[in-house]
Amino acid sequence: MIKLKSHVSGAWHEGLGETTTLLNPATEELLAETSTDGIDFKGALEFARDVGGPALRSMTFAERGACLRSIYDVLYAHREELLDLSVSNGGNTRNDAKFDVDGANYTLLAYASYGKKLGDRKLLVDGDSERLIRNPRYAGKHILTPLRGAAVHINAYNFPAWGFMEKAAVALLAGMPVITKPATSTALLAYRMMQLLVDADVLPDGALSFIAGSTGDLLHHLGPQDVLAFTGSGDTAKRLRSLDAHVQSSMRINVEADSLNAAVLGPDVAPGSEAWQQMIRDIATDVRQKAGQKCTAIRRVLVPPERREACIESLEDQLDQFIVGNPADASVRVGPLVNGAQLEDVREGLKALETESTRIMGDAEPTGLRGTENGRGYFVTPFLFDCEDADAAHIVHTREVFGPAVTVMAYRSVEEAAAICARGDGALVSSVYSNDRRFGREMLLALAPFHGRLTLGGDKVASFAPGPGAVLPAMVHGGPGRAGGGEELGGLRGLSFYLQRTAVQGYQPLLEKFFPGAD
Amino acid sequence: MIKLKSHVSGAWHEGLGETTTLLNPATEELLAETSTDGIDFKGALEFARDVGGPALRSMTFAERGACLRSIYDVLYAHREELLDLSVSNGGNTRNDAKFDVDGANYTLLAYASYGKKLGDRKLLVDGDSERLIRNPRYAGKHILTPLRGAAVHINAYNFPAWGFMEKAAVALLAGMPVITKPATSTALLAYRMMQLLVDADVLPDGALSFIAGSTGDLLHHLGPQDVLAFTGSGDTAKRLRSLDAHVQSSMRINVEADSLNAAVLGPDVAPGSEAWQQMIRDIATDVRQKAGQKCTAIRRVLVPPERREACIESLEDQLDQFIVGNPADASVRVGPLVNGAQLEDVREGLKALETESTRIMGDAEPTGLRGTENGRGYFVTPFLFDCEDADAAHIVHTREVFGPAVTVMAYRSVEEAAAICARGDGALVSSVYSNDRRFGREMLLALAPFHGRLTLGGDKVASFAPGPGAVLPAMVHGGPGRAGGGEELGGLRGLSFYLQRTAVQGYQPLLEKFFPGAD
Repeated sequence: MIKLKSHVSGAWHEGLGETTTLLNPATEELLAETSTDGIDFKGALEFARDVGGPALRSMTFAERGACLRSIYDVLYAHREELLDLSVSNGGNTRNDAKFDVDGANYTLLAYASYGKKLGDRKLLVDGDSERLIRNPRYAGKHILTPLRGAAVHINAYNFPAWGFMEKAAVALLAGMPVITKPATSTALLAYRMMQLLVDADVLPDGALSFIAGSTGDLLHHLGPQDVLAFTGSGDTAKRLRSLDAHVQSSMRINVEADSLNAAVLGPDVAPGSEAWQQMIRDIATDVRQKAGQKCTAIRRVLVPPERREACIESLEDQLDQFIVGNPADASVRVGPLVNGAQLEDVREGLKALETESTRIMGDAEPTGLRGTENGRGYFVTPFLFDCEDADAAHIVHTREVFGPAVTVMAYRSVEEAAAICARGDGALVSSVYSNDRRFGREMLLALAPFHGRLTLGGDKVASFAPGPGAVLPAMVHGGPGRAGGGEELGGLRGLSFYLQRTAVQGYQPLLEKFFPGAD
Repeated sequence: MIKLKSHVSGAWHEGLGETTTLLNPATEELLAETSTDGIDFKGALEFARDVGGPALRSMTFAERGACLRSIYDVLYAHREELLDLSVSNGGNTRNDAKFDVDGANYTLLAYASYGKKLGDRKLLVDGDSERLIRNPRYAGKHILTPLRGAAVHINAYNFPAWGFMEKAAVALLAGMPVITKPATSTALLAYRMMQLLVDADVLPDGALSFIAGSTGDLLHHLGPQDVLAFTGSGDTAKRLRSLDAHVQSSMRINVEADSLNAAVLGPDVAPGSEAWQQMIRDIATDVRQKAGQKCTAIRRVLVPPERREACIESLEDQLDQFIVGNPADASVRVGPLVNGAQLEDVREGLKALETESTRIMGDAEPTGLRGTENGRGYFVTPFLFDCEDADAAHIVHTREVFGPAVTVMAYRSVEEAAAICARGDGALVSSVYSNDRRFGREMLLALAPFHGRLTLGGDKVASFAPGPGAVLPAMVHGGPGRAGGGEELGGLRGLSFYLQRTAVQGYQPLLEKFFPGAD
C-alpha cells in the first residue's frame, strides 16, 4: 500500500502516528494511507514565504507563465496514469476523470498564455494616471504587487486535479508561493501530480508545497500577508472565517461553498426543440457527471407550469439510460459517491428532499449494480424529484444534496423564478434556456445579483454550448452568500486575490516612468 | 438641549429610555443627547431593501449622480452652520472642520461627476467579450449589478461629514440603499446633515436612513445581500467580522481600522531643502490636524541615522509653534481629543510609547491652555518621541495612539525601512520623500504590499502636493492587515463593493446586444 508524503520545506516528509486511509469508492479496496502528524507546518509556511516568495517575485510574468506551461507538459505526459488514478481513487468514469484532469491542464494552458501576454515585466498597473489637483503635474496611479506571504489552498475531494491547478496556476502567475492541500479521500491523484512536478523540477524551491492530509496547526500560523483559498462545505468555511488571522488581521479568505444552482426554462421553449434538448442534456450531464458531486451542478429545474410534466418525462427518459456502477467498467456512466460519510449525508439529504417533493425515480440503496459486489461501494442511482409547490418548499432551496439528484418545480413569472432562485441565498451558476430575447435579458438581470455566473441557452447555441457545470478560466467562478462570496479565475481578475492594490501619488512624469501604461 | 432622532422607515423616530450625551470636547458643555431604544431596526432594514433599493435601481447612473449633486447643493448652502457644529461638537479648529465638511462636499461632487459620465444606463459591463470555445459565436462577458440588500455604514467619530458621504456617495451611485450610523460622540454634525437632506427631499424614499446612536439589533438582521462598511477600531472590526451574516452567509464587510503610517526620508534629502520642508510640513499637519485623530496620520518617521537629530530639531521647532486650546478661539491650531475615553486611551498610549522612546516634547495633562477652563476639556499637547532603536521597539510599530504624537527613528537601507514599516502589519498610507529616482522607485515597491496608498514627495512637487493624510476620491483608501483589509473610493473601483460581478455566457451577438461595450 502507498504511504503518501507531504512535500514541504523543500523535501518529502512522511507523517508519524495514526494514518487516514484512501479507498476505491466503487470497491472499498484500500489504496493508500497518509498522516501529517509531526510535520513542522510553521517551518513549511516560513519556507514558502522566505524561499518561494522571493524566487517567484524575481521572475517576470512570462517566466512564471513558462513554469505553468512546464507543469502542463509534465502532467500531460502522464495523462493516462493520472486518469487511471482518478478512476480508482475518485470513483470517476473515464469521462469524469477527463473532466477533472483535462480541466486542470486546460486551465494551466490558459494561465500560461496570460503570463506570456503579460510578458517581460513583474508589475501590473491598474488603470490610467489620475489627475488629483488643479496642477496636472501631481497625479496618481494604482499598482498591483504580490502579497509577501504564502497562499494556502484547501481543495475539495471532487476535483483533486482541477482544484489543485485552477488555484495554483493563478497564485503562481500572480507571484505568490502556494501550499496546497487536497481533500484526503481522493488525494492520490494530487499526490502523484506533485511527485511528477517535484521529479521534473519545474518550479523554484518553495514555490509549491503539498500537504497530504490534515493541515495540523498550519492555519494558526497564518498572518496578514498570507491568503487562504478554500473550496468545500459551508461548515468548514465558517470555521476558516473564524480564524484569528482573518478576524483580527484581515487575512484574505476566498471561499467556494454550497450552491443550489438552477436551470430556468423560458415559456417560449417547446418540448423537443433544440433549446429544450439543450436543457435536458445539461441537467442530465450534471446528474451523471461525477455522480452529481459538482459544486456547479444544477439542483433545481424551474419550468412554466405547463411544461412540468414534459420536463419530468424527458428527464426520466434520459436519466433512466445511465448505467450506474463501478467506473472501471467502460459501460458505466454514473459512478459511486466518494466515501461512506458522503453516502450517509446524501442519503439523509434525499430523504429530506422527499418530505416535500415526490420522488419520480432513484434508489438510495441500490443492489446488483454493474461491476460491483453487493454491499460494497458508495452508490445511489440518479434521483428525480417533482416539487409541487416551490414556494412552500424549503429544503430544496437550502440543502445542497451533493449527489445525483435534481428537482423539477414550476414558476409563473420572471419575478417568481428569480425569487425562487434567490431562496438559495446565492449560487455559483444558473442557466436560462430561451429564444425570447426579452425574457432572456430580463431573467439574466433578475438572477445576476444572486449569481457569480449565468449561462443563456437557446436554439442558436444548443449544438455547441458547454453546459453551465463547466468552469472556464476566462470567466469568474464563485458566487455570493451561501456559495461563499468568493471569486476565482476570470482571466487576470483571479490574480487580484494575491495582489495588493496600492494607490501611488506623486510627480506625474515620474509615476508614468515608474509605472508606464495601464493593463 | 437637542434630542437627536433617527430617520428610518421613512420617518423620524425618537429613541426611548436612557440617553447618551454629546459634548463640546473643549468645554465639556452638554450639546445634545440621543437614544435609539425601541426603534424597529428589522423594519428599518426591510424598508431600505424593499423601498429604497428598487427606487435606486430604477434610476440611471446619471440620475443617481444628479441626486449626489443635489446633496452637495443642500450641504454647501449650509456650509457655515455645518462648520460651526464641527467646531463645537467635534473639537475641531475651523480648518479641521473644513477638512471634514469640504472633504464630504468634494467627494460628493466627484461621484456626481462619475454618475454623469456613466450616463443614461443602469448597468456596468466589466471588460470585453471573451471567446470561450472554438466556435466564436459562443462567448462570455462580465456584468456588475447592485446587490439587493442594504448597505450599512458605521462611521468613525473623527470625520462625521466626510465619513458619511465618502461611503454614502459610492453606495448610492452603485444603486444600494444606505443606512448610516455616525459615531455617537460627534453625531450632531451628521444629524444636521440628515435633517437638511430630509427637508430638501433630494433622495427617493428609503435610499438613505440615519441611526443616531446604537444600532440595537440591526446587525443581527443582516443577510447575504446586505453589506457592511465600517471605519473605526480593530476591536470593533473583530466583533463585526464575527457576525453570523459574515461568517455563515458571506456578507461582505469592508473595514478601515488602525494604521501605523510612516514617513520615509530618502538619504539624498538635505535638511532645509524643499523635499525636507515638505516632509516636516506633512508630519506637522498630521500632528496638528484634528489633534492627530486621523487614521491616515503619520505616526512613525524613518530617516537615515545622520538626519535623526536635524529631523527632530525641525519638528520640534514646527510643533512648538502650534497653540493648543479651545478651537472656538481663532488662534488655536490644535484642539482637544474627542472625549474622556479617548483622552484616557491616548494618555495610556503615550505612556507606553515613552517606555521605549525618549519624549522630546509633549504634555499629557496640560493646564492654562488658550480659551479653556483648567480641568475642562480633553487635551494633550503635541508629542514628539525619539526612538533610538527601531528594531528593538515594539509598541511604536503596533499601537496606534490616536492623538497628536509622532516618533522619529533611524533606518539604514531600503530593506530595513520596508521591514520597519511592515512591522505595522499593514497600513493605510505612507509617504516617501526623495529626489533620487532609483531610491524612490525601490522604496515604493518595497512598501507597496503593506500599503493601500503611498505618496512620493520631492522638490518637484513640494510646493503643491497635498499631504498623505488627505484622502482623494480618485484613489483607493484602505490598507491590508491591521488597517482592515478594506478598499473604499478609488473612483469607480469603490462601486464594486456594492455590486455583484456576474459572468454571463451565451450567443456572442446576443450578449453584445444585451451588454454592449466595456466600461
